[in-house]
Amino acid sequence: MAVVVTGTSRTDLSIVDQLALLGVATVHEAQGRTGLLGPQLRPIFRPARIAGNALTCEVAPGDNWMIHVAVEQSRPGDILVVTPTSPCDDGYFGDLLATSLVAHGVRGLVIDAGVRDVADLTEMAFPVWSRTISAQGTVKETPANVQTPIVCAGALIRPGDVIVADDDGVVVVPRATAADVLAKALARQENEESKRARLASGELGLDMYAMREKLAERGLRYVEASET
Amino acid sequence: MAVVVTGTSRTDLSIVDQLALLGVATVHEAQGRTGLLGPQLRPIFRPARIAGNALTCEVAPGDNWMIHVAVEQSRPGDILVVTPTSPCDDGYFGDLLATSLVAHGVRGLVIDAGVRDVADLTEMAFPVWSRTISAQGTVKETPANVQTPIVCAGALIRPGDVIVADDDGVVVVPRATAADVLAKALARQENEESKRARLASGELGLDMYAMREKLAERGLRYVEASET
Amino acid sequence: MAVVVTGTSRTDLSIVDQLALLGVATVHEAQGRTGLLGPQLRPIFRPARIAGNALTCEVAPGDNWMIHVAVEQSRPGDILVVTPTSPCDDGYFGDLLATSLVAHGVRGLVIDAGVRDVADLTEMAFPVWSRTISAQGTVKETPANVQTPIVCAGALIRPGDVIVADDDGVVVVPRATAADVLAKALARQENEESKRARLASGELGLDMYAMREKLAERGLRYVEASET
Amino acid sequence: MAVVVTGTSRTDLSIVDQLALLGVATVHEAQGRTGLLGPQLRPIFRPARIAGNALTCEVAPGDNWMIHVAVEQSRPGDILVVTPTSPCDDGYFGDLLATSLVAHGVRGLVIDAGVRDVADLTEMAFPVWSRTISAQGTVKETPANVQTPIVCAGALIRPGDVIVADDDGVVVVPRATAADVLAKALARQENEESKRARLASGELGLDMYAMREKLAERGLRYVEASET
Amino acid sequence: MAVVVTGTSRTDLSIVDQLALLGVATVHEAQGRTGLLGPQLRPIFRPARIAGNALTCEVAPGDNWMIHVAVEQSRPGDILVVTPTSPCDDGYFGDLLATSLVAHGVRGLVIDAGVRDVADLTEMAFPVWSRTISAQGTVKETPANVQTPIVCAGALIRPGDVIVADDDGVVVVPRATAADVLAKALARQENEESKRARLASGELGLDMYAMREKLAERGLRYVEASET
Amino acid sequence: MAVVVTGTSRTDLSIVDQLALLGVATVHEAQGRTGLLGPQLRPIFRPARIAGNALTCEVAPGDNWMIHVAVEQSRPGDILVVTPTSPCDDGYFGDLLATSLVAHGVRGLVIDAGVRDVADLTEMAFPVWSRTISAQGTVKETPANVQTPIVCAGALIRPGDVIVADDDGVVVVPRATAADVLAKALARQENEESKRARLASGELGLDMYAMREKLAERGLRYVEASET
Repeated sequence: MAVVVTGTSRTDLSIVDQLALLGVATVHEAQGRTGLLGPQLRPIFRPARIAGNALTCEVAPGDNWMIHVAVEQSRPGDILVVTPTSPCDDGYFGDLLATSLVAHGVRGLVIDAGVRDVADLTEMAFPVWSRTISAQGTVKETPANVQTPIVCAGALIRPGDVIVADDDGVVVVPRATAADVLAKALARQENEESKRARLASGELGLDMYAMREKLAERGLRYVEASET
Repeated sequence: MAVVVTGTSRTDLSIVDQLALLGVATVHEAQGRTGLLGPQLRPIFRPARIAGNALTCEVAPGDNWMIHVAVEQSRPGDILVVTPTSPCDDGYFGDLLATSLVAHGVRGLVIDAGVRDVADLTEMAFPVWSRTISAQGTVKETPANVQTPIVCAGALIRPGDVIVADDDGVVVVPRATAADVLAKALARQENEESKRARLASGELGLDMYAMREKLAERGLRYVEASET
Repeated sequence: MAVVVTGTSRTDLSIVDQLALLGVATVHEAQGRTGLLGPQLRPIFRPARIAGNALTCEVAPGDNWMIHVAVEQSRPGDILVVTPTSPCDDGYFGDLLATSLVAHGVRGLVIDAGVRDVADLTEMAFPVWSRTISAQGTVKETPANVQTPIVCAGALIRPGDVIVADDDGVVVVPRATAADVLAKALARQENEESKRARLASGELGLDMYAMREKLAERGLRYVEASET
Repeated sequence: MAVVVTGTSRTDLSIVDQLALLGVATVHEAQGRTGLLGPQLRPIFRPARIAGNALTCEVAPGDNWMIHVAVEQSRPGDILVVTPTSPCDDGYFGDLLATSLVAHGVRGLVIDAGVRDVADLTEMAFPVWSRTISAQGTVKETPANVQTPIVCAGALIRPGDVIVADDDGVVVVPRATAADVLAKALARQENEESKRARLASGELGLDMYAMREKLAERGLRYVEASET
Repeated sequence: MAVVVTGTSRTDLSIVDQLALLGVATVHEAQGRTGLLGPQLRPIFRPARIAGNALTCEVAPGDNWMIHVAVEQSRPGDILVVTPTSPCDDGYFGDLLATSLVAHGVRGLVIDAGVRDVADLTEMAFPVWSRTISAQGTVKETPANVQTPIVCAGALIRPGDVIVADDDGVVVVPRATAADVLAKALARQENEESKRARLASGELGLDMYAMREKLAERGLRYVEASET
Repeated sequence: MAVVVTGTSRTDLSIVDQLALLGVATVHEAQGRTGLLGPQLRPIFRPARIAGNALTCEVAPGDNWMIHVAVEQSRPGDILVVTPTSPCDDGYFGDLLATSLVAHGVRGLVIDAGVRDVADLTEMAFPVWSRTISAQGTVKETPANVQTPIVCAGALIRPGDVIVADDDGVVVVPRATAADVLAKALARQENEESKRARLASGELGLDMYAMREKLAERGLRYVEASET
């Protein structure tokens, strides 16, 4: 019953590449704090910052067969996103698969499971976000879906959605709203620049954001230590 | 019912700065193995080693409002210590707040929750010890206490206590005993130097610490592999 | 009832040193995917890659006494392997013990517990795989076994078995089969080299491993996105 | 930007109620081993077995406001499904909210967070599957979505999908395929009955499922203990 | 350096006993949502509900010696509160110690570690809240403090503070404010009774708490499913 | 390369059955606090107390094939002990397999993974100790070893070793020492009876175990609260 969906749409790489520059925290804020994958996914080396089109891949526990199937579906600018059908920390992915993905223009891997050969992957500068590092090998016995919608680390990801990943984690931007999110993220970034300068000069957030009145309304009081 | 306590006392920075040089393990030993925060707090970059006066701050889950309030209470030489009122791994803190803290002379952050913008924080060389790295944003709706005694990662911390943090973790030294702990830690360090030289020459700890008799008393026996 | 077994056998260092070059993932595969220690054991710095003879050591929770006993039993080329008799994350080991081990030719430490002084250990380039980093000190009150078979991070380890450790984790190779595993691992490595070249040229794993037929047999189907 | 979607469709209760009788494991198998929520969700009392239409509800961390909003959207036969927008173990739900839900015919609660008043909920026989039990109270400050698609404990859930929950956990059945899954689950159950009788009589699964040949093909060998 | 503090004050049992009737969630709310111990502490049997004066006891990891010392300090109406000086899940406590505590009028145990003999403890109806159940035995080698302020499961507890524990968890009420918290909790309970009746009749929380306007202000919108 | 070892030895059931009566904590103490499986293994219902001969079985992650193979090797009085070759929480075992085991006289299951159909297993009174409860189904694709030595939840278990399991957890007693451990456990139990009576009468452990002098030697001091 496993299927590979071919001919899926992708997000325009000109949008994708700009989202990479903005980073996960800014993009996550720009789309209303949605789409973040769980913080258990960590980069195997830092710093790292990429964006790409999601190439989605399910795998059975302890079975990396479908990653080989996914490679054939890859296009330049993709990021491979792998989720096990039940939780598993095995080392599904190593330097041979990375070599193959690089040959097809894939930019990195996001996997809610384990990877191995991390010294080689680091040397190759192939970025990976994983839940675990483990040398535990996998079998090739059980098919699963490629390029179908999946839940990875708590987020819904559809083929061709934009994945942005950096040292803070991983966020998914739906293909349909990617252009809009980009516009909002660019605006947000600009706004942050001016705030940074004011804060660097010593201005307080309390004043810059005009928080004092609302804090008082919600009951915040100041007391002298000598009175406590 | 949330309060900000103003005018709290701090520990003399001449004591604080010497404790930084000694490091967490030595200080922890010198004060009788007390005051260690839980090992879930890890530095976002290594190496890092700082000490400072605790500027304590409670935050509601998913709400970083009070960090803005805490900035105003900061003094040069402080370390901001943040604890959520119930467990939360959100990214409470990023490069804008770090910029603001640096502008006021704050030396670093200890937070039993998450932080984001860690690539920027690393570039700024702003040291942070946190439980998680997460891009998840927070709201500004619920007040909590600033500069009151708090429990952070299992340790009681009062405003103006000394925080020492390095690659091994974080320890708190009560203000009242800081000078005494410093004296003991300095003595301990000196003692370690001589031990290190003896061990480097090949002398056994069994002999240097005269452990053989006590081991025998407690029943340790040596047997030949051929007899087992 | 605690014993120290003396005069245990070790694996020939010429075998050990070749296994180090091959790395954990390759060795683990070569011996039929057995012997891997749990992925909770992580190196305190990266990259790191060593192999050595297991010098096994049990410790009571919060008690590092037996590590001092183990040092005396060490031989050049050993790796100290420590397991607590019940789970404990304390900092059992620091730079003084590392200094002592280095003086006796020990190559590194594998411990299913915590270590401290990690900045110093990193500077010394003394490799450690541990479950935790913690400054929490330990006592010296309760004997336990040295150089007996132990379970460490889920794997059975006998004195003189080969420990291989790198950025992917830690694997144990029984002394009796070490030469055989080495031969298989060398063959495997050679085989991987040729695969890497083919994958780098763009050849698909699907073709290289002739997977298409078996995938079809197990029910994998390809469908056009437009038909879903 | 938070929305409440009204007028969502539901699955026919005649289907829902039959799925409850079949239980989670059978339903999960019948739909191809998909749709299972993570095993961190546990019932607060056992035995418990229900099914209902998903009434979906997002909540901010430490903020249960939207549960009050969801109550108004409930219909008899619903199960309230709550997911925090970032992980939180607070006690979002207690006996007052349960009283309110019961008054509107809601059958139970599935929440990827904490609940409290569990003694009262148990006495009321109101079934709850939660990640945690915690008395920690929540605020009412931040809106979130009600009756939109959500990810709860790793599974995608749409309003009106069928939730089946019992001592084994929780599974979601999409509304579109619920009738089909029911048919398959009924067939599966019947098949299991006959297998149970044969196994109870001592017949081996090896024979009943004709596994011996395939096991031999995949390399399983039998050896006498005396030969090892 | 370990001390036993004798002659510590206790809270009047007439206050303590009324707090037991109110339960953890109500008491926690009544004191402004403070004082809750972490949800990792779970009762070994349910239902259970007690309150008592905190008899505080530190223990070394894997060492239950000080529990014997604490027994002598107990008074009728006490609850023994045990925290290890570093995290440990060993079985510190079993039916013999429970027998001894019962003989001295102690009402139960709260321990941020493990217990054993839980079948016997259940039969004795001796209530325990623990982090783990484990048969792992402990030694008697290292002294620690009794009747000093401790941090247990993240909360600061002083000798003679009131501990309230039930199926929802454990909360501490400082001795100084116990009477005041009791008054507030009684008022809160009364208020809940009337709310319960209204909710049971089908009244919505949205109306009873007048939430609609504030929700609209914060941006909540209602949309028809047919329009999405 | 997977093997089934046939004709393995077992421990005499007269010894096994007496160990069951003594329980895990007593047996664990009697054999010098060794052999305990990790506390992550919990019974699916309580109370439960059994002992039996270990029938060992490895399984691949997400693959329960070998349990069917193990059933054929079972003998009356066995306990099935299952460990995955890499960590996995799937529901490997349900009521059909339990029906089969019961038909062959197997007394229970210990599994460092998940089980399902726990309502049925409870009704059947078939005792299970597992790490998880999960409805997640498994495949039958990959052979592994049956009746070979395994590590389960951190303990080494050989076929025919005695497994004792109760509400406190699970312990393994090597076949070779089972008679000796039984003798020690019986002696220990008798000794506990007399202690229990003395403690119940109010005698202090401090006196009964003559601890006061050793406590003073190790530095314990008593101070009046009024002097602190």
